[in-house]
Amino acid sequence: MVRFLVLYDKPDDPAAFDRHYREVHIPLAKKLPGLRRYTVSREAGKVRGGHPYYLVAELDWDDMDSLRSAFASPEGQATAADVPKFAGDRVRSMIYELEDL
Amino acid sequence: MVRFLVLYDKPDDPAAFDRHYREVHIPLAKKLPGLRRYTVSREAGKVRGGHPYYLVAELDWDDMDSLRSAFASPEGQATAADVPKFAGDRVRSMIYELEDL
Repeated sequence: MVRFLVLYDKPDDPAAFDRHYREVHIPLAKKLPGLRRYTVSREAGKVRGGHPYYLVAELDWDDMDSLRSAFASPEGQATAADVPKFAGDRVRSMIYELEDL
Repeated sequence: MVRFLVLYDKPDDPAAFDRHYREVHIPLAKKLPGLRRYTVSREAGKVRGGHPYYLVAELDWDDMDSLRSAFASPEGQATAADVPKFAGDRVRSMIYELEDL
């Protein structure tokens, strides 16, 4: 399993961010080919290291080839192009294989 | 499902960090009561927003009460007390409910 982890910092206008994320971004992301699971955080609470991220999105694919194909697809390019429209540069994202312990 | 997300920045001595994490921290964390899944990232690659975190650990419980009980248990206190020994303050962690989209 391969995960795309997206960490959004708190936006200036949370209501506008939430509206765009729900109404535009989720529908785009849900079209990504091969997407196995898509979760977002609800009411994140801090444990260590300052405030929690405003939103944590996690998108899973079977393997790295499937994720790379999804990113390269028209749906992937549309989803990626949408991010700056609601998040600006307040986003940090990464991909990794999951190792179950 | 409730997730505890732990984001570790790159340590000064990655080999020492890795050794402590594998030999001490994982065995402690795996004793946490009610833990349903425990994954760590392998070879995280950057997508946006600077370098990826050095290590992403994700620990899941059925619900917030189970997670809070685990944190409050002797095993939870031992696991928490171990973190500064290998990560110092280079760690950011948070808990949240997962919303499946």
